[in-house]
Amino acid sequence: MPERIYNFSPGPATLPVEVLEEAARDIVNFKNKGIGLIELSHRSKEFMAVAEETETLIRQLLAVPENYKVLFLQGGASSQFFMIPMNLLGNGKKATYLNTGVWSKKAIKEAENFGDITVAYSSADVSFNRVPQENEYNVTPGSEYLYLVSNNTIYGTQFASFPEKETMLVCDMSSDILSRPLDIAKFGIIFAGAQKNMGPAGVTVVIIRDDLLDRVADNVPTMLKYKTHADKSSMFNTPPTFAIYCVGRVMNWLKAQGGVAAMQKINEKKASQIYQVIDSGDFYRGHAEKASRSMMNIAFNLPTSELEAKFISEAAAVGLDGLKGHRSIGGCRASIYNAFPAEGVDKLVDFMTGFAADNS
Amino acid sequence: MPERIYNFSPGPATLPVEVLEEAARDIVNFKNKGIGLIELSHRSKEFMAVAEETETLIRQLLAVPENYKVLFLQGGASSQFFMIPMNLLGNGKKATYLNTGVWSKKAIKEAENFGDITVAYSSADVSFNRVPQENEYNVTPGSEYLYLVSNNTIYGTQFASFPEKETMLVCDMSSDILSRPLDIAKFGIIFAGAQKNMGPAGVTVVIIRDDLLDRVADNVPTMLKYKTHADKSSMFNTPPTFAIYCVGRVMNWLKAQGGVAAMQKINEKKASQIYQVIDSGDFYRGHAEKASRSMMNIAFNLPTSELEAKFISEAAAVGLDGLKGHRSIGGCRASIYNAFPAEGVDKLVDFMTGFAADNS
Repeated sequence: MPERIYNFSPGPATLPVEVLEEAARDIVNFKNKGIGLIELSHRSKEFMAVAEETETLIRQLLAVPENYKVLFLQGGASSQFFMIPMNLLGNGKKATYLNTGVWSKKAIKEAENFGDITVAYSSADVSFNRVPQENEYNVTPGSEYLYLVSNNTIYGTQFASFPEKETMLVCDMSSDILSRPLDIAKFGIIFAGAQKNMGPAGVTVVIIRDDLLDRVADNVPTMLKYKTHADKSSMFNTPPTFAIYCVGRVMNWLKAQGGVAAMQKINEKKASQIYQVIDSGDFYRGHAEKASRSMMNIAFNLPTSELEAKFISEAAAVGLDGLKGHRSIGGCRASIYNAFPAEGVDKLVDFMTGFAADNS
Repeated sequence: MPERIYNFSPGPATLPVEVLEEAARDIVNFKNKGIGLIELSHRSKEFMAVAEETETLIRQLLAVPENYKVLFLQGGASSQFFMIPMNLLGNGKKATYLNTGVWSKKAIKEAENFGDITVAYSSADVSFNRVPQENEYNVTPGSEYLYLVSNNTIYGTQFASFPEKETMLVCDMSSDILSRPLDIAKFGIIFAGAQKNMGPAGVTVVIIRDDLLDRVADNVPTMLKYKTHADKSSMFNTPPTFAIYCVGRVMNWLKAQGGVAAMQKINEKKASQIYQVIDSGDFYRGHAEKASRSMMNIAFNLPTSELEAKFISEAAAVGLDGLKGHRSIGGCRASIYNAFPAEGVDKLVDFMTGFAADNS
């Protein structure tokens, strides 16, 4: 068996190895009960305890207030793009969106089928290399919510802080949830596909203020109403039991690391090491404006596309995998979510330094 | 560690132990590549090969014709209840439904939001203890499709054969897909949540005739159009990679058992052993009419609810777990999907025989 590689994939992404080992044991024989984890009825007391623990840990780690529900849904963040307006808009209701990349653009497209949508800001003309300051856009009066993507995986941009305006925020946090403390009370809905910072693909965590549950029209399909899932503690139908279990184990690991405040410090350190190499000369160019830089995804270019290809290939040969940038902007990208180990960042930094020296 | 129990749960359900062991290895270190299965990017060549193999095996095992797509979706069978009419009906189009239990009833409720629905048959007045013969209902002329649930998990009923009428069939096969050979050409859509006969919860397999993909209205959310997923080989967004992997491994196991024709014989034998005990005296009463009996779920009663409780509890004590019937009809139920081992059936039969002798 080769050594474990360092996996810079943007998602599904690196998970804590102890979580993988625990899952491997439980899959064959859940807590030594003579039955496998994925064979457990979702209504068994064993699995109900798993789901409850997962929810409790998320609530603790993010300090989720009592008047918010934590839901485990399917269909990815992409299904939230239409569920949000389907549940909160309709009948000409308004919402304001900030367009900071592919994922917000997709969310805008879906929302336009259900409400009166204003795109108050777009960085499309600068290859989405920045997110706006609060004084750069106006929320349309009467908007039910202001929609934003907290971290843009493809471009390596991130909101350093959240808008302070009074409008309720709805936020796609797929690629940075649990990477830093949050004031949940600003948000109506936070959602995140699990496969970056929480676990495997196959479950989407939705945190929703409970007064929003009743806004949905009667004729919306039952499965697409947040209320359906909130009323049944995400057990209206069979939930993705394995994914929920893994999220719970990752939350348990995160708690043992000291929680999200401690994790934020670790993430800042990891990211700053790589940005330092980028900023130390002309060889590497960061894609994002400095004020918009992401702690989770670091997108950068080399002097030529040939050097980028060489960089990606030589890095892979020494166990630094998945450094190819997204096809929409090319170049390189290092995704370093919570579970990405510090030693892997050290190794990348050394490799980048050496590669620049050898190829300048 | 206790011995592996016999798990009669209706779903999530028993899986082949060799699949569990393979998944356990790959979760930590996928094919010895130094990366875990659930850490693999869905766009990596490793995972693309997994998805492709899973689809190929399903196509082989069910002899799926070329003009059908096999999709891996999320949201459970429950999401198909509205996706089907959302994609195929609208504008006053008609469909005919057969109501043979809770799941068809839910499907009817969702469909009524999108089209003109006729319920041509219902066994609600006889506690859903039967499915109809073809001469017991009329398909409404002009129906786009005839909807049925091939096997009713809760009541232990199953269509022994499928309607021969000309109307295209749409079928929920969640609890008996791959348990017997099928003539796919009769069906427009077949769908099944994986967690009974195919793998873990978290993926729904949809087999759809390709001419149906273009019927959907433009303003349907992108994620809810079958065409979206068909055009992108189920990779429009991040698919539930672990669940797809497991389905592939179960398909591989099924192929090694001789495929669905061989499995049908095994299933018939397992079910008939239990029905023989039920029919051998007055102690046990089968819920389903004989002509409607399911090979997958066997629902039965004992003389009193006290004896049923005693039966369930004493069975669990000897490693026969999950025999409690669904709350809607009470009693007992043995779910014996493809992966449920023959030895477990032998053990149940012995237990039932002994329990009847001791408690008559």
